[in-house]
Amino acid sequence: MKGAVLYGPRDMRFEQRNDPTIIEPTDAIIRLSATCICGSDLWPYRGIQPITEATPMGHEYCGIVEEVGSAVRSIKRGQFVIGSFFASDNSCPHCNHGYQTSCEQREVVVGAQSPLLRVPLADGTLVATPEPPPNELIPSLLSLSDVMGTGWFAADAARVKPGSTIAVVGDGAVGLLAVLSAKLMGAERIIAMSRHESRQKLAREFGATDIVTDRGDEGVARINELTEGVGADSVLECVGTQESMQQAIQSTRPGGYVGYVGVPHGVTLDGQELFFEHVHLHGGPAPVRQYLPDLIDRVWKGEIEPGKVFDLTLPLDQVAEGYRAMDERRAVKTLLRP
Amino acid sequence: MKGAVLYGPRDMRFEQRNDPTIIEPTDAIIRLSATCICGSDLWPYRGIQPITEATPMGHEYCGIVEEVGSAVRSIKRGQFVIGSFFASDNSCPHCNHGYQTSCEQREVVVGAQSPLLRVPLADGTLVATPEPPPNELIPSLLSLSDVMGTGWFAADAARVKPGSTIAVVGDGAVGLLAVLSAKLMGAERIIAMSRHESRQKLAREFGATDIVTDRGDEGVARINELTEGVGADSVLECVGTQESMQQAIQSTRPGGYVGYVGVPHGVTLDGQELFFEHVHLHGGPAPVRQYLPDLIDRVWKGEIEPGKVFDLTLPLDQVAEGYRAMDERRAVKTLLRP
Repeated sequence: MKGAVLYGPRDMRFEQRNDPTIIEPTDAIIRLSATCICGSDLWPYRGIQPITEATPMGHEYCGIVEEVGSAVRSIKRGQFVIGSFFASDNSCPHCNHGYQTSCEQREVVVGAQSPLLRVPLADGTLVATPEPPPNELIPSLLSLSDVMGTGWFAADAARVKPGSTIAVVGDGAVGLLAVLSAKLMGAERIIAMSRHESRQKLAREFGATDIVTDRGDEGVARINELTEGVGADSVLECVGTQESMQQAIQSTRPGGYVGYVGVPHGVTLDGQELFFEHVHLHGGPAPVRQYLPDLIDRVWKGEIEPGKVFDLTLPLDQVAEGYRAMDERRAVKTLLRP
Repeated sequence: MKGAVLYGPRDMRFEQRNDPTIIEPTDAIIRLSATCICGSDLWPYRGIQPITEATPMGHEYCGIVEEVGSAVRSIKRGQFVIGSFFASDNSCPHCNHGYQTSCEQREVVVGAQSPLLRVPLADGTLVATPEPPPNELIPSLLSLSDVMGTGWFAADAARVKPGSTIAVVGDGAVGLLAVLSAKLMGAERIIAMSRHESRQKLAREFGATDIVTDRGDEGVARINELTEGVGADSVLECVGTQESMQQAIQSTRPGGYVGYVGVPHGVTLDGQELFFEHVHLHGGPAPVRQYLPDLIDRVWKGEIEPGKVFDLTLPLDQVAEGYRAMDERRAVKTLLRP
């Protein structure tokens, strides 16, 4: 098969790779219906997070089970499945607490920007849809593999409640879906921080009530103004830089909640500042597996359409253009069709 | 009157000061029944947190109201009252959310190691007992002014629940009362980290089920071992150093809770490490005012005796010896009688 391999900064190649095979008896092989490019793929693509060798890319996936290992029990050949970017056994103590991305047997899923994918711990990782989905649901189902689950975790970690006033830092796919998640959890006022018109539009469609274009200290001041000097009840941090994290913490009222899901790059927090900010802080790799059954159900019923974040669809062999479009912010998120 | 004034590292003097007077109409003047020395007083005493001028010390207090300003409504002359180290109006949005130590009108209370004290925002800050207390309740009531309320907040911030496995980092007065608080909240297993026999004994009396004498990485490894590799559900950090904070975070299971109340000194947290630890983090100056009515009630009924943390009682004029005893760890906490 041919798949996406990153060789260095902005050196993305679509090239021959070995077909994946069952290695462990708990593995499954999936024929992907769709895959996509993640904001976090841009860190190595841009060279900010250097790679040491040619790296098969991609960790978001959905598709038809082609083969299962001898120890796989619940997942069957022919099912349409979705899984998380971290494989998990879904039975260890951490999984039982709902933190499957910290599973004792956690394994990273790699190389999903390809037609076939090996998924470890298939029974614990994959969730099947009631039946193979109609084509138009595939983008939304694919989004559950990472971005929608991650936006949902941001809102969950920030304890968004009915009536809350919340702010979302970051207008990438995760930030936009964090807006949608907060709306679904009943937030009354949703302030999206965005400077891009097309993203503002989608944020409003997903439920944003206010748009703030300022950033950093000005962004904090604006949130403060909009909340009559109190600060937001919950702030959802969906970027992962020092500036975005500071902005999130400082925009939250004392006793309020920061949910952070942007993988932090070069972020350090001063203990004493955090102490006097008086906020709750929770985040990490989103335990997407926990949310999959509920979110699949919502997509299936047509209640939500998170797939709207895909504003560019390309055949898989044009993966390099998909990266370029996101790098240059011409696209929010690129869906790839193998 | 004569009160405690710090002139520089370990230069504590008991000297003539002006009697406090009503400055704002919302003030009250209290004649103190007892006051004490806080672990946090040792930071400036030791010169770790330098002072720039002679500083009246003390922020824990209880006593009889001697005078009230013209705008004070609920607090009356002759009442026995307890208040927090931060004065608060108890009516602003932050107070209404239970974060009185982030009150919009917050004012620090200073100079409590003296016979008389001015307390700002008396109606919002002070809570009266049902009647003047018997002498033997005074140490426990005094402890509610800071250390017991702070230990309680550590447990509250770390969401201690019935059946929880928790660990407490720090065996000072706050750490010991964090043990008591966790016990009252129903924690099943309470691991106290302490190397001092007398403190271990009091920790056990307050409800500790296990004692760990290791610190740092060894301490983390020991907690891991005691929890069968899972980590504690909640860890209560009651010190405020880089080591204690790291130890608390690393001893917590993914999805677990760190409640931190030790004022951080030189603490920095790495964003990416925190992200993958997957813990909840909450802390800050304890909103003692929120807990006072409940905790006064528990002391009044004889349900708890937090005053046991005072293992040295001195007349106020021996305040310098009180500091020395705590500095040299000969005493956990010194009560001073004006």
